[in-house]
Parts: sequence; structure tokens; C-alpha cells
Amino acid sequence: MAKDFSALDAFLDEQGFDGYLLDADSTASDQYYLSGFFANDPFVTLYTPEETALLVSGLEYSRAVAESRADVVRKHQDYEYAELVQEHGQEEAGARVRAAFLDEFGVESVATNRRFPLATADGLRGRDVDVTADTEDTVTDIRAVKTEDELDAIREAQRANQVAMARVDELITDATVEGGELHYEGGVLTSERVKREVDKTLLDEGCAAEETIVACGADAAVPHNSGSGPLRANETIVVDVFPKNKDTHYNGDMTRTFVKGDPSAEAREFYELTQQAFDAAMDALEPGATGAEVHGAVCDVYENAGYPTLRSDPDTDTGYIHSTGHGIGLDVHEAPSVSHRSDEPLQPGHVVTIEPGLYDPDVGGVRLEDLVVVADNDRGYENYTDYTMQMVRE
Amino acid sequence: MAKDFSALDAFLDEQGFDGYLLDADSTASDQYYLSGFFANDPFVTLYTPEETALLVSGLEYSRAVAESRADVVRKHQDYEYAELVQEHGQEEAGARVRAAFLDEFGVESVATNRRFPLATADGLRGRDVDVTADTEDTVTDIRAVKTEDELDAIREAQRANQVAMARVDELITDATVEGGELHYEGGVLTSERVKREVDKTLLDEGCAAEETIVACGADAAVPHNSGSGPLRANETIVVDVFPKNKDTHYNGDMTRTFVKGDPSAEAREFYELTQQAFDAAMDALEPGATGAEVHGAVCDVYENAGYPTLRSDPDTDTGYIHSTGHGIGLDVHEAPSVSHRSDEPLQPGHVVTIEPGLYDPDVGGVRLEDLVVVADNDRGYENYTDYTMQMVRE
Repeated sequence: MAKDFSALDAFLDEQGFDGYLLDADSTASDQYYLSGFFANDPFVTLYTPEETALLVSGLEYSRAVAESRADVVRKHQDYEYAELVQEHGQEEAGARVRAAFLDEFGVESVATNRRFPLATADGLRGRDVDVTADTEDTVTDIRAVKTEDELDAIREAQRANQVAMARVDELITDATVEGGELHYEGGVLTSERVKREVDKTLLDEGCAAEETIVACGADAAVPHNSGSGPLRANETIVVDVFPKNKDTHYNGDMTRTFVKGDPSAEAREFYELTQQAFDAAMDALEPGATGAEVHGAVCDVYENAGYPTLRSDPDTDTGYIHSTGHGIGLDVHEAPSVSHRSDEPLQPGHVVTIEPGLYDPDVGGVRLEDLVVVADNDRGYENYTDYTMQMVRE
Repeated sequence: MAKDFSALDAFLDEQGFDGYLLDADSTASDQYYLSGFFANDPFVTLYTPEETALLVSGLEYSRAVAESRADVVRKHQDYEYAELVQEHGQEEAGARVRAAFLDEFGVESVATNRRFPLATADGLRGRDVDVTADTEDTVTDIRAVKTEDELDAIREAQRANQVAMARVDELITDATVEGGELHYEGGVLTSERVKREVDKTLLDEGCAAEETIVACGADAAVPHNSGSGPLRANETIVVDVFPKNKDTHYNGDMTRTFVKGDPSAEAREFYELTQQAFDAAMDALEPGATGAEVHGAVCDVYENAGYPTLRSDPDTDTGYIHSTGHGIGLDVHEAPSVSHRSDEPLQPGHVVTIEPGLYDPDVGGVRLEDLVVVADNDRGYENYTDYTMQMVRE
């Protein structure tokens, strides 16, 4: 399945725009997706139903021709950029070059993404180009449904993730307990040390992680706390790893929760309920279900067991205090969301995380997260994650 | 020395703006600098000569209060965001919240950076806020002059860089040559393998590198080619490492060129001339000199030896085909530039790279790069780089 821009064509047609314009580097995922070109410096992509054209610096030109999905690549100097800089300065020269580029393709009105640079927009508006921010995020929505190549890339990132999780599992399993703290190969096993092992393992698998969560005890009870200091026995350790493949730029995401030694009865109940909540979410997940329905299935499990959720108590800071999942692809967090506000039906090709969890500073935190693609099959999804859910490491 | 925003105050006063507004995540360096807060999701910073105020999500609120340099932190819900979303939808709710935030501080007109999001700007304009992109990049210019804390952070990143370069040096030095290719510990020593070793070494030093250049032979003759495949004896190997410290977010940058075995006479001349060019640049570097003058000193050396430069031949693709250096800090490339267009005088506290090089596909490439801070001392700078320049590894 190739990238399908028919929804973008329909948007341009309905709204009466000649084209869709981006000005960003490729860490902006809409830019990488629409251009098919990865560059660390900003460049311009013009999409029209007839063709995709790039405007890049001379330094990037030959690589853009070779690597991008564009039909046409132009460089600044094609519009006499250097001469314009001499005469008018860089700002004015840049604006004139971009206007000349649009003019070459007969484009007089464009939609842009929400984060399109204001200076570029005003420069074009000053040259009678109609520029309007697309507050519907049309390209972001198109990206939510993955192509086969994208699914392969996400599957590969998640495979690397499993190798990293196995390494963490090994460290915790092989650790000894001294004075209540985990020790490994003669030193205290800290959150920082485990994260460094995750980073090294991911490197060997062609991936890198901006951040990794290895949070123990009260740290684990705060979903955004990435953890620090010694890991302790008999306490929950939340391990959340989200690697990006360095070649493909696609992400994986997985969370497991471990206890070295003997968990409290409360922690055991947290874990069992979270497995039930996870299963309930997976049962609800299928094409046509909404994110809100999947999220609701998780809330039902926790609320029926007497725990607060943000649905039952918007102000709670214990219990189930986040949404059930998020889309993932070029961004770790992207459309579609699996939360109480998600009333759009899920579609085959949507890749989402399912990650229920329970949190209480007096008990710790438990979160379990797999990454799945919504699919037209008997189950309604295919799970890209193959890693056991088991709390206790002796 | 603390951050000095007097130039921003003067800009706002001269141009008649009430404040300076940013809407970005903290990978946008102006945002991290002005807010003193690192967040992966976009948030809003308002700077006025009286105070700095942040507008963040509820999730980030307590961390923003604890970590940012802001005098005031507001969260979306302070302006009844949830209720506004119910009534008007997310886009309109966001615009109303931002307008209410500005109104609280009596701000009716703002300058923004060039890459300020168009949707945010138009949302405010629709509520009678005057929004103008600052095409002078005032905050970026302020960032170019580093505080003592920033200098410490850059020095530390460069120290890590030296550890990584020493590891590369060791691999090349200890390698054997078999069939013209470098071998190490039983396997071919490839560009990819060396880069992975750089990544692992940097991780141990608390750093990460987006990319590393280890380019051999004809690859080394293309400055932007990051290199691939086996490293070969008797050919130039350009090694360019630019790590970012994961805690401070500041960067280092260094390039060395190695030859395992016996370089050609031409490669030896490339190296000697590049050392001379490097020395000439350092002689020219001092407070008050322009980047263009430093760059000119390099061009003089190469041109006097009969090699083309972009100054003598703007169309050449051999010889000296890039600028002499760039500012570095939160971004790997930032102000000030050390190139033929840099006519602003360099100031104490400017941190720049000095990186002359010669390139020819028939000879290979040679580049030598140190990172220095311009300083009010006898030399005119302090060199943060302590790594020998020596081409041949036996």
C-alpha cells in the first residue's frame, strides 16, 4: 500500500486551495512524510494534486533528487537567490524565491500545517499569496493510517525494543539484594545504570531513545517521572522504553512492570487488575470502535474494582490517571488518541499503544503497554509486541 | 554572568511591542533559552521587560514552577480551557486561552521568532493582538554570547568529544590492514562500526550524537557525506563528531583526519595546508574581527597555494568548498557564522568552530576543526579543544 493523499486532494478541492505548503526540517513528521526527504535544515515542500515539488538549498539538491518522493526539485539559486540577497538582504530574498517557486507551479493560494513559520507566511502574504493554516491537521490525519512499509518499520523498532526489555529483565533477574537495594556485578543497580544499558542495547539494534523510564516505588506512581537512584527490592519498577530507529525514523513503545522479590498484596492487585484492563481494551479494539470506547473498557475494569479514574473523578491523582493509548509512527505520540475524547472510529492501519496502569504513592505504579495495529481480522488487531507480562523476579 | 536580555528590552522598546512571544517545544533553542524550561511538548513563553510568564499544560505545571526561569507560570485550566473546549472546540479554546493569558499581563502587541506557528499567530490576530515576526532573530543573537554556565556546559560536551575521538584514534591505530582494508578484532573496520563505537563512548559520557561523520577516500571529499563501508589504508578518513550533552543540551564539535599507513603526497599537502589555514584563522580570531576576516585568512592560505575556494570560484566543487566555522551552543549550528557574509564583529563569549578543509575526489578530504570561545585575552580566544593534530597512524 503506497501513501494515499486522496484525503488531501479532497481537502484542497473542498476548501479551494491550489496546494499544501510546508516549511520545516524533517524532524517535523508531516514534512518527512509529505516530502519523503530527511534533512536537518528547513526546506519547502509544495503538494498539489498534480505534483509534489521541493525547494532546497544547493547543498541538499542532489540528495533531494535521489531520495525524496518529489516529482520536481528546485534549488534557491534557480530563482537567483544570491543576486537577490545582494540587492535586498536575506529576508526579502527568501520571500521572493518562495513566491517565484509557487508562481512557477501556478499556485496562488495554499493551506499550511498549524506550525508553519509565521515569517514565511507573512512574506508570501505580502506577495499576494493566500496562506491559511489548516487547523484540521489533514496531513497528520493521513499519516495515522500506515502503509505496509511503515508497518514493517514500526515492527522492526518494536523488535529492537524487545531486545532492550530483555536486557532490563536480565539485569533485574540476575541482581542480588543487599540492604533492600538491587546490586549487579558488584555495584548498586540504579535507574540511571539500567537506562544506560537500554541505550547501549538499542544502539546495537540501530535505534536510539530520547528518554527511557525506569521508575521505582513512589517514582513509579508518577507516570511522567523517568526515575532515578537505586532500584529497591519488593517495590514496583515501571520500565517504559520507546526507541526510534535511526534509519527509518519510526518508533516502538512498550512498558513492563517488575518487582524484584516479594510485592505487597496491593501491588499484586494493581498488576492483576491492569492485566484485566489490558485484556478488556484489546477485546474492545477493532475497526469501527472509537478510542473513547476502548478507553471506557479500561475505566470500567478499574472503577468496578473500586479505583478512581479520570472518568469517575477528573481531579484524582491516584488510580487510573492517564489515557489508554496514543497513535505512534514517526512521532512517539501522534493520531489517533485512545482517550475519552476520541470519538472518531479506529481504522485498519492505525497503530496505537494500549497502556492501562494504576498509580498510588503508597503502593507504587503498575503499567503494561503493548503496541498494536488495528486490522481487518478476527481479533480486530495484530499485536506487534511479543514480551511476557509477569511481575515477579525472584 | 547571567543571561542578559537588555538587547531584547531595547528591541521591544524601539519597535513598540509589549512583549516577545514563543510557542514551541524546547528543542527550539530560543524557547529553552528564554523559558529556562525543557519540555518535549509545545508551550508558550511571554517575555516582557517586567517579567517572564509561561503557559503550560497541567501535566507540566509543577515541573515548570520548579525548573523554569519564569516569574509566573500559568496552566491552561487557569483560563477554563476544558469548559471552552466543550463549548467551542479545541482550536478556538486554545486561541481564547492564549489571548486571556496575554490580557492578564496587559500585552496587546507581541514580536515572535520567525518560526512562530501560523495558527497561533492568526488565532491571536483574530482577537485583536498585534503579532509580528521578528526577522532579526533577536533572541538567537542574544544566545550567541554565552554565559559562564553555558561555557562550562560546552566545555564539558567537548571533553566528552575528546574521549570519543580518542576511541576512534585507538580503533584506527590498533587496526591491521588486510587486502587494503582496516580490520579490528577479527572483523572489517567499517565506517558504521566506528560510528557505533562513538555512540557508545558518548553515552558513557552522558552525551548523544544525532549523526557522526566517519568518511573515507572519495566519501571524505564530500563534506556532507557521513561515510559508509570498510575503511581503507592509505586513504584519508575524516572523523567529525558533534555530541549533545543529554542533561545540559549543549553541544561540542571536533574534526580530525587520519590516514592508516602511507598517505599520498597530495594528501600530505592537503593536511599541511589545512594546518596552516587553521593557524591563520586562529591568528585572525579576536574580539572585533569579523567572521568574514577569519574566513578570508583561510581562503588566502589555500588560494596562495593554488587551490580554488568559493571566494575565488563560486562554482568550484574541489578545493575549499565550505565556510570556516559556525556558532555552537544549544544548536550545533547557530550564530555567529564565520563565513564570507559575516560582517558583524565577533564578541567575547561567542563560541565558534574553526574548521578549514580541502576536498578532491582524486585525493580525498582533509578537515581539522576545533571549538573555541572568543575572549578578551592576549590570544583573542580560548581553545576548548585539546586533541593532537596528526595525520598518520602506522
